[in-house]
Amino acid sequence: MLRWLTSGESHGKSLVGILEGLPAGVRLTSQMVQDTLARRRLGYGRGARMKFEQDQVTMLAGVRHGITQGGPLTIEVGNTEWPKWEKVMNPDPVDPAELEGLARNAPLTRPRPGHADYTGMQKYGFSEARPVLERASARETATRVALGTAAQAFLAELGIRTVSHTTVIGPVEVPEDASVPHADDVDALDADPLRCFDAATSERMVAEVDDAHKAGETLGGVVEVVVDGLPPGLGSYVHWDRRLDARLAGALMGIQAIKAVEVGDGFRTTRRRGTQAHDEIERGEDGTLRRDGNKAGGVEGGMSVGGMLRVSAGMKPIATVPRALRTVDTASGEETTAHHQRSDVCAVPAAGVVAEAMVALVIAQAVLEKFGGDSVAEVRRNMESYLANLPVVGE
Amino acid sequence: MLRWLTSGESHGKSLVGILEGLPAGVRLTSQMVQDTLARRRLGYGRGARMKFEQDQVTMLAGVRHGITQGGPLTIEVGNTEWPKWEKVMNPDPVDPAELEGLARNAPLTRPRPGHADYTGMQKYGFSEARPVLERASARETATRVALGTAAQAFLAELGIRTVSHTTVIGPVEVPEDASVPHADDVDALDADPLRCFDAATSERMVAEVDDAHKAGETLGGVVEVVVDGLPPGLGSYVHWDRRLDARLAGALMGIQAIKAVEVGDGFRTTRRRGTQAHDEIERGEDGTLRRDGNKAGGVEGGMSVGGMLRVSAGMKPIATVPRALRTVDTASGEETTAHHQRSDVCAVPAAGVVAEAMVALVIAQAVLEKFGGDSVAEVRRNMESYLANLPVVGE
Amino acid sequence: MLRWLTSGESHGKSLVGILEGLPAGVRLTSQMVQDTLARRRLGYGRGARMKFEQDQVTMLAGVRHGITQGGPLTIEVGNTEWPKWEKVMNPDPVDPAELEGLARNAPLTRPRPGHADYTGMQKYGFSEARPVLERASARETATRVALGTAAQAFLAELGIRTVSHTTVIGPVEVPEDASVPHADDVDALDADPLRCFDAATSERMVAEVDDAHKAGETLGGVVEVVVDGLPPGLGSYVHWDRRLDARLAGALMGIQAIKAVEVGDGFRTTRRRGTQAHDEIERGEDGTLRRDGNKAGGVEGGMSVGGMLRVSAGMKPIATVPRALRTVDTASGEETTAHHQRSDVCAVPAAGVVAEAMVALVIAQAVLEKFGGDSVAEVRRNMESYLANLPVVGE
Amino acid sequence: MLRWLTSGESHGKSLVGILEGLPAGVRLTSQMVQDTLARRRLGYGRGARMKFEQDQVTMLAGVRHGITQGGPLTIEVGNTEWPKWEKVMNPDPVDPAELEGLARNAPLTRPRPGHADYTGMQKYGFSEARPVLERASARETATRVALGTAAQAFLAELGIRTVSHTTVIGPVEVPEDASVPHADDVDALDADPLRCFDAATSERMVAEVDDAHKAGETLGGVVEVVVDGLPPGLGSYVHWDRRLDARLAGALMGIQAIKAVEVGDGFRTTRRRGTQAHDEIERGEDGTLRRDGNKAGGVEGGMSVGGMLRVSAGMKPIATVPRALRTVDTASGEETTAHHQRSDVCAVPAAGVVAEAMVALVIAQAVLEKFGGDSVAEVRRNMESYLANLPVVGE
Repeated sequence: MLRWLTSGESHGKSLVGILEGLPAGVRLTSQMVQDTLARRRLGYGRGARMKFEQDQVTMLAGVRHGITQGGPLTIEVGNTEWPKWEKVMNPDPVDPAELEGLARNAPLTRPRPGHADYTGMQKYGFSEARPVLERASARETATRVALGTAAQAFLAELGIRTVSHTTVIGPVEVPEDASVPHADDVDALDADPLRCFDAATSERMVAEVDDAHKAGETLGGVVEVVVDGLPPGLGSYVHWDRRLDARLAGALMGIQAIKAVEVGDGFRTTRRRGTQAHDEIERGEDGTLRRDGNKAGGVEGGMSVGGMLRVSAGMKPIATVPRALRTVDTASGEETTAHHQRSDVCAVPAAGVVAEAMVALVIAQAVLEKFGGDSVAEVRRNMESYLANLPVVGE
Repeated sequence: MLRWLTSGESHGKSLVGILEGLPAGVRLTSQMVQDTLARRRLGYGRGARMKFEQDQVTMLAGVRHGITQGGPLTIEVGNTEWPKWEKVMNPDPVDPAELEGLARNAPLTRPRPGHADYTGMQKYGFSEARPVLERASARETATRVALGTAAQAFLAELGIRTVSHTTVIGPVEVPEDASVPHADDVDALDADPLRCFDAATSERMVAEVDDAHKAGETLGGVVEVVVDGLPPGLGSYVHWDRRLDARLAGALMGIQAIKAVEVGDGFRTTRRRGTQAHDEIERGEDGTLRRDGNKAGGVEGGMSVGGMLRVSAGMKPIATVPRALRTVDTASGEETTAHHQRSDVCAVPAAGVVAEAMVALVIAQAVLEKFGGDSVAEVRRNMESYLANLPVVGE
Repeated sequence: MLRWLTSGESHGKSLVGILEGLPAGVRLTSQMVQDTLARRRLGYGRGARMKFEQDQVTMLAGVRHGITQGGPLTIEVGNTEWPKWEKVMNPDPVDPAELEGLARNAPLTRPRPGHADYTGMQKYGFSEARPVLERASARETATRVALGTAAQAFLAELGIRTVSHTTVIGPVEVPEDASVPHADDVDALDADPLRCFDAATSERMVAEVDDAHKAGETLGGVVEVVVDGLPPGLGSYVHWDRRLDARLAGALMGIQAIKAVEVGDGFRTTRRRGTQAHDEIERGEDGTLRRDGNKAGGVEGGMSVGGMLRVSAGMKPIATVPRALRTVDTASGEETTAHHQRSDVCAVPAAGVVAEAMVALVIAQAVLEKFGGDSVAEVRRNMESYLANLPVVGE
Repeated sequence: MLRWLTSGESHGKSLVGILEGLPAGVRLTSQMVQDTLARRRLGYGRGARMKFEQDQVTMLAGVRHGITQGGPLTIEVGNTEWPKWEKVMNPDPVDPAELEGLARNAPLTRPRPGHADYTGMQKYGFSEARPVLERASARETATRVALGTAAQAFLAELGIRTVSHTTVIGPVEVPEDASVPHADDVDALDADPLRCFDAATSERMVAEVDDAHKAGETLGGVVEVVVDGLPPGLGSYVHWDRRLDARLAGALMGIQAIKAVEVGDGFRTTRRRGTQAHDEIERGEDGTLRRDGNKAGGVEGGMSVGGMLRVSAGMKPIATVPRALRTVDTASGEETTAHHQRSDVCAVPAAGVVAEAMVALVIAQAVLEKFGGDSVAEVRRNMESYLANLPVVGE
């Protein structure tokens, strides 16, 4: 059983995540978390904030001398801008006189289309959108990435590794027959401006971002997460909510701005005829069975088939569009345009890093469900024993 | 808190589902369940089994005189073919002599590509696929539809209604500007051979099914579920697993053969630029705010915005293809072709009915989380009170 | 992950339980369930109903030829009195004319003290107590016992066995130094009129029951569940809700009429001084460490220490007292006495069997969390590997 | 849905708790948390550490200007001794040369009886007990108390208040007919050396602590938590894990060193005969029904009956006994005595404050399940509407 909670406001003192259920013995350092968080700030088309922002990582609990101890892991990501926000976002009451006239404290009454702003005000009974956007902000994903780093470190101990890449930016997409990256390609991907594995497509994506930027527009796209080294049989067909694909879909759709999720070839598969849509089973040289392709994305019957898994997530264009969208001021009732708070054109490459984190957390959960174990050594032993005892074909 | 478990094997005595947490006071009869199950058997391209199969519905617990009582609801869907399977699938030990030579009892050692068969054998350590396919079979969805009927009945008490329609069959899809059906259109939809709301497209879909049938092929497609009458604020942005879209995506991807999920315009939105991708906010005649469209599918920031919600699910072609796929006999190790057990060309229209059920269960859960309540009267009172107390714009 | 739902009304068609997450390969037959249910009807002081009542067991899903298949297990316990109740408790609407004048259908408006009746009416908005008592009735425990049988069968495959015995009936209790039964003693215990392991105490208990019976009274008592053969390390100290004692306490207190729970010596330990309260650690002949006693009940730091575990549950006297308690008729507002529906003096021995079932379910959950595994063979392999790899003292 | 995770090691940088699901609009300040944590350090018989220790409270997320915002609440309790432990407990790797010779870093190989030490080493595969005792330590309860303060603040908005008092210290207990404190008595209780509501008993408890102290002994005892102002119908009889008593029992038994739990009169009730064991129902002057006592502790059928609720928890004597207990050195295999790390005689009064926190968290959960609501205003509205619509007797 692996469970986690994230917390924190975009301009609060810090973001904090707790991950409960990680086995003891996982090698994990602050630097590793720092590095993944840096990957989250990557990507052509991000605003200035990303370039200068530093994520201050402190591991508050669960790790000692670079090794997890079995208890809940807590990671804090500090807000380097906190001094500017300390009054406005202070958890404790602040003298109204001190708040008076602070621009940052002004009520946000022009809810932004495509954001949680207006509905959040309705749901929680707020008279302005500040409390909504502080928590709904995608900055929260820093916590997921931090916890996901721990999940990735755990999986790495078992030879399971994740990577993500950008397959679509706006109307530009990689060719259907482009090669799929592996975990070893992560540095090459991170070096690409859009974390795209196809150089020619990447160039076209850069041009598209430039064009959108000039036009005061924003862009969405699609990222794919690839997992290598999976054993067969994670997840299950016996109940819908044990299915690995169901859990992955929920985890990916639960990322801000994601509107679509695919496993393997996804919608492309729906358009194929039966004989062209499935991965046939054949005998490998070593006598074990294998699939003749990966259209299914490595998931059949809600279970990992073993080897590579692929899932994709589609992100809508950033809703805070420079050419601002129409809205209504909830205080005055007048039609107006939305608050505009940042200047990113496209956050798709970063979404890939977040998607990796969510996938890693889900896979880690499925691994623990399948193999149990309270230490890395025990989990590994159980996994190896399972693999060594798989039914043998032809016997 | 609403939770449910389904159980049962495809050729077992019966399928049984328990739904725990439904308020008291929901009007529900066996006939209502029977009717939804009949809708699940609809659709051009289904094999003979569907036409003749009858689902024997017995409500075993939780309802009295057509009104739910607050306790767990149990619905049994009996298997009319049980006498033929009683020995082979008997829960209790059967004299080996009686099983000897029964064709139905022969080990299934040719795992079907695209199914849970082979990985299921590995995961659970089975020497043949019978135990896998019995539970992995889409017949299990009858239980979901039965329990979903109860969720739909509950939601109907609050003015929330669901409907589904087919938008894609293989390469044939409804035009982008086709009108979206409402809950009132359910009879018209059920009367259409493919549960498609666009008559011209439906005709082309029928032709496609006929063609695939002749070719020994199968087809997949896409269904969309539409929910009408939602209040704003179901789900939440405060934590990823409270997001309504995350839950819906998990529930839909958890249906057998579903490989892709979209909320609203989904992947189409990822290709749009920012100014074209979002539903702008404007003031309605009655002074309340409204969106100028439904590209987002009625979900923003992980919450229902109120009114209509739209989610789609993409189904792969049926994996049991008449022109059988390649596999390996796990007993002999020889390459062969897969078992072939049924003759459906396309199960997409039925998947729509299943998707409706899953959506209704998720929405019912979200309603109970938002409004609490142990009886329909209490839930309704709380929901109405919430709606009456929404912040007023311009005050 | 092991989860279960029970359903059914006391006079409904049947009680049904689903247990999801049980590994494949557990040997389980209807007769085994039947036998445990028969044990639940045991005990001096039960009314006539228990003697004649038969529990009709049907395993509807999850088992084939006496072996669990990995999917959800469903057990139905039929109500042999159903024909008498079919109209009154029919799930579907019944013609009011047919219900008219049926004594069984009369509104129950004299809520019984000590029962869920009155509060249940308030919570769910019922105008009479029928819907409450139908579900609140301890008859529901038949489902728990049925599912618990499956959990016990699973644990037995791992050498873990449970037994329960009566330690207190009203003011009569076994001496502090009485010996504790083991799983092998179950037949002897079941043969005792009160399932008490101390013959002299049992005689006094019988006398107490006789006396209470004459006085129109009812009796409560205490049962202890003993589990043998546990590995060390089930449960955990890392989070409160992972603690084995916390889960056991919740499961036992969740049984109807239980008002108190102890682990090991429980309250007796609270009265001891530190040097007398704990089980000291010493080296056994085989070099492994052991405790010099079992005051802690085999749980320390929220984990099984290995070997024997003991937990107790205290049951209040049956609330349906022959010398009826005072209440108010909710229809008329007049003070009156409570409905009286059965004639048991004491249900404590039966509560022991129910407590065993709940303990077995919780232990089975903890085993799966610790060892993972989808088949008995896999769970056993992982458990044996863990035991073989325990840190060795003095190395 | 209210859920929470706690984290942190006894000598780590800080303890952190996240509470997810608290409605917006709860008034909460750091000082309130500080004050409850100070109450947790109270009690005659605590060692020097408690007197000087300060809990540094920082609310990192979820609150703004003293009002909760609907997102997860995060509270950090800093360790003022961190500089002394920074090397030994550093999350990141530390140069072995720097650790060499640090007494605090020496392996703890003499596991203490009555603690998680030895079993924890087995479970997680540790070669010494440091990682176990760091997390298993009761210092973790500071996080529960911090989060419990938030739950109490929420409940207070609804007129529901909790208090705890000590009823037993070792062999000394308050008389059966002693009066039960109410929430208003909290200051008087906190002023008593043992948080006992009966002055004469308190004096005897002080004497008992003094005596135990001289004897190198430790003491356990019993605390009772009282909740005032509950509506009827929290929890439910419809499923065992919805029962309020089951949840309270699990939450209390999940506190370190608790070995027994009672609801209301608990075990005393098991010894009474039926006519003396239950709270009869009568009509109050205002026409509503009421119970003629509180033997049941305000819970019947797994639900709050309304008004006062009482639950007790029995704590074993502190296991770190000055006259040290026997154990075995796991490194050498030699018999020895246990590590001795602190000098408290008795921690029962503090356990009462922790128990209050756990009870408040469980009640808050049950309130949200019954009434839903995302803001205090909404929850209150729904609760008031429920109370106003309770079935009226005699109509």
